[in-house]
Amino acid sequence: MEVLQSKQDLRNWIRDRRGRERTLVPTMGALHRGHTSLIDLARETTPENDIVATIFVNPTQFGPNEDFDSYPRQLEDDLALCETHGASAVFTPAAGEMYEKDASISIHESALSHRLCGASRPGHFDGVCTVVAKLFLLTQPSTALFGEKDFQQLAVLRRLVRDLDFPIEIIPGPTVRDADGLAMSSRNAYLSEEERAHAPIIFAALSRVARGIAEGRLESPLEAVAELTREIESAPPARIDYLEIVDSITLEALTDFKNTTPRLLAAVFFGQTRLIDNVGLPALNA
Amino acid sequence: MEVLQSKQDLRNWIRDRRGRERTLVPTMGALHRGHTSLIDLARETTPENDIVATIFVNPTQFGPNEDFDSYPRQLEDDLALCETHGASAVFTPAAGEMYEKDASISIHESALSHRLCGASRPGHFDGVCTVVAKLFLLTQPSTALFGEKDFQQLAVLRRLVRDLDFPIEIIPGPTVRDADGLAMSSRNAYLSEEERAHAPIIFAALSRVARGIAEGRLESPLEAVAELTREIESAPPARIDYLEIVDSITLEALTDFKNTTPRLLAAVFFGQTRLIDNVGLPALNA
Repeated sequence: MEVLQSKQDLRNWIRDRRGRERTLVPTMGALHRGHTSLIDLARETTPENDIVATIFVNPTQFGPNEDFDSYPRQLEDDLALCETHGASAVFTPAAGEMYEKDASISIHESALSHRLCGASRPGHFDGVCTVVAKLFLLTQPSTALFGEKDFQQLAVLRRLVRDLDFPIEIIPGPTVRDADGLAMSSRNAYLSEEERAHAPIIFAALSRVARGIAEGRLESPLEAVAELTREIESAPPARIDYLEIVDSITLEALTDFKNTTPRLLAAVFFGQTRLIDNVGLPALNA
Repeated sequence: MEVLQSKQDLRNWIRDRRGRERTLVPTMGALHRGHTSLIDLARETTPENDIVATIFVNPTQFGPNEDFDSYPRQLEDDLALCETHGASAVFTPAAGEMYEKDASISIHESALSHRLCGASRPGHFDGVCTVVAKLFLLTQPSTALFGEKDFQQLAVLRRLVRDLDFPIEIIPGPTVRDADGLAMSSRNAYLSEEERAHAPIIFAALSRVARGIAEGRLESPLEAVAELTREIESAPPARIDYLEIVDSITLEALTDFKNTTPRLLAAVFFGQTRLIDNVGLPALNA
């Protein structure tokens, strides 16, 4: 496995392997089974391709009061995991390598980004779009994998690919969970013991409410969100940021379930730590 | 020469010519010698490459009161010129082919775009960046040519390539002029006979003032802009939009000439028609 720290090293490596296609797995490091499952999925879905993982904690997608400085960094462990799971190369640039001091180009998404996580993280998805576009252009992949846990991010990045005509197929990776259902996240490390004990309520509530919708017991999004709210508020340290049931593609809040493919989205604070999770439902017909 | 109207046709054509590199010459059609000189330059500088010209009048770079509807369209003549000058293919999509109805991704440039032409055309350069990024991603060129006549556009697009890491070399094409010095432009067709007779004053004044700077007669940008203003205002139908002497890279207005590479930029209305032109100076040392 090659470890590439500069854009030029990456370009040289790609040139030396001319004729091979690549699958990209972008990460911010602090790798857990959620990330390594994406590398595994890359091997399964594109076995002919080189797999390029990237490790870059992107400053432009963090707000001024967010956790950029304290975001966990563990490069040696991360590289070992990438190698074990079969990455061909890891691109791990310094921030000064990625952005010129007077950089003035950014990418803006205007339809899917302002609500949900975007409401409490202004500029976040523009920062994500800009860095992912750069990683796409640097690594020139034919396929890129993103986890479904960041469901809004996945929808925004599909839009990025569609609207700028990137010749890249996006493959979503299913959310990986701890045994008690909590979605894997690098930010789980911030949780106190008590918060960690209550955090599985998010997935438990999402799953129960999804089942209630599928079985017809919960007949409207309003009813379903009310039940979700009650369930999650039953965990003492939980403070709801948002709970929404949206269309899987447009991310618009559903007003009924007829002919929809609903996605249940949750963002919940446990102390200072904001956790997100989501579950899908099969298409519902009238 | 292939004429390609859909993205899929373009992708198929590229796939069929796998292994060949491409040089891109993007245009809005209404081709004149300025455009064909870029195709000629593409043949000279990248003789091994396929040359892909694009003809697309991009709605998103026109303001609501601008000339999108009346912009000259003459596809048959344009295709004949592309063929004569040796283009390998022309990509000429309909607007509905280029943009999805609910497109929500755009590219924003924040340092070079707001002044000069950007001041009277808000959103123009974001529209240019977005469509050029799409054309880059659709045609996948190793080289792209843009005319120096649109000098601010050239600077903005160099920034686009640098900041998003497009693996593309930009080559500027020298401005092509009529015998009397007027820079070729599709918009020259809008000029009345009287306006056309006076329009060469722009290049004449730029040239004389550039000579005055190079010879040391004009010692400051202030002095030089004053002379430029006097000269251009001597033509009765001319109404100045801006006259500026800027740094060639940052486009910031110069306050003195020491250790600079100045560019003299002019935008002048003749009636309703806004003409732009510019001339460069070699680097000046203290």
